[in-house]
Amino acid sequence: MKALAEIQVVPIGSGVSVRKEVMRAHELIAESGLEVQLHSYGTNVEGEMSQIFKAIATVHETLHSEGTVRLMTSIKIGTRTDKESSLAGKLFKTE
Amino acid sequence: MKALAEIQVVPIGSGVSVRKEVMRAHELIAESGLEVQLHSYGTNVEGEMSQIFKAIATVHETLHSEGTVRLMTSIKIGTRTDKESSLAGKLFKTE
Amino acid sequence: MKALAEIQVVPIGSGVSVRKEVMRAHELIAESGLEVQLHSYGTNVEGEMSQIFKAIATVHETLHSEGTVRLMTSIKIGTRTDKESSLAGKLFKTE
Amino acid sequence: MKALAEIQVVPIGSGVSVRKEVMRAHELIAESGLEVQLHSYGTNVEGEMSQIFKAIATVHETLHSEGTVRLMTSIKIGTRTDKESSLAGKLFKTE
Repeated sequence: MKALAEIQVVPIGSGVSVRKEVMRAHELIAESGLEVQLHSYGTNVEGEMSQIFKAIATVHETLHSEGTVRLMTSIKIGTRTDKESSLAGKLFKTE
Repeated sequence: MKALAEIQVVPIGSGVSVRKEVMRAHELIAESGLEVQLHSYGTNVEGEMSQIFKAIATVHETLHSEGTVRLMTSIKIGTRTDKESSLAGKLFKTE
Repeated sequence: MKALAEIQVVPIGSGVSVRKEVMRAHELIAESGLEVQLHSYGTNVEGEMSQIFKAIATVHETLHSEGTVRLMTSIKIGTRTDKESSLAGKLFKTE
Repeated sequence: MKALAEIQVVPIGSGVSVRKEVMRAHELIAESGLEVQLHSYGTNVEGEMSQIFKAIATVHETLHSEGTVRLMTSIKIGTRTDKESSLAGKLFKTE
């Protein structure tokens, strides 16, 4: 099932600056093969729902294994049956 | 990986009242075997991250197959390596 | 304008346990006069939109003045013109 | 109090395509004088917290007056006391 999503990973207790963890999360999502768009409040992605969830699980597993103790991720994920949707179409036509 | 999450399923274009779809989503999440708590803005769940994502995929697949054309789900999901966390502990001790 | 909302306050860089700040935020929201319901992933509130936003601003101002360096708050806020909605009605009838 | 925020306005019951309402919401936010960045999952803004909340209230009031019956808006809003933050800095340095 094709989906569009927004993923925002927040490390809690890793210090006031979360730069390192947020960039690492974005990098891991980009490496997953999903189409990605980084913005100031997260990473937008386009792909199969299962692949999106797998990428998020990889982010949590990897960041924890690299020392981050606590993570909270906010996700918005949308699916529709009436047409193919894409990040580009959502941005320019905002349907 | 054990996780706590909040799941809010919003049908778009199914009418101003979303009662039927939201209750169906909650029912499907409860049937998944996760520990669940329904509140006014979603369903809180406790379980394995993979099981939580599987339940959400089931909600989208089932509601689409039952006629809902468009769905947007908001998820907050948290994991930590320093201790076991639970919905009950989060509520009463809010750690 | 009457609104229902969910407010989740997350201190960033205050340590892995966020218990103290989250309980303080909930307390400040409750003291604002809004009708409140605490759950494992935030505080649901019912009241005027302007009053809800004022309560959130008070949480940020107060926690910062009490020493929290960084805060990120997630809010979902809903309004409708067809009927009066309430937290209780949303929970039991989920409309 | 300076804040960075993400605003996503979702009309419920206005049809499967929400293009018209979402573009109108973005337009109203842009007209508020806040610095704005449109992306596929919302509008990121930079400005005073009070001004951000006022813009969101204007979106709800205006869309309701123009016929939208039900709206749910998701907001993430962040403040910090250790430094000035900006949308541009958040994007490029992701701190």
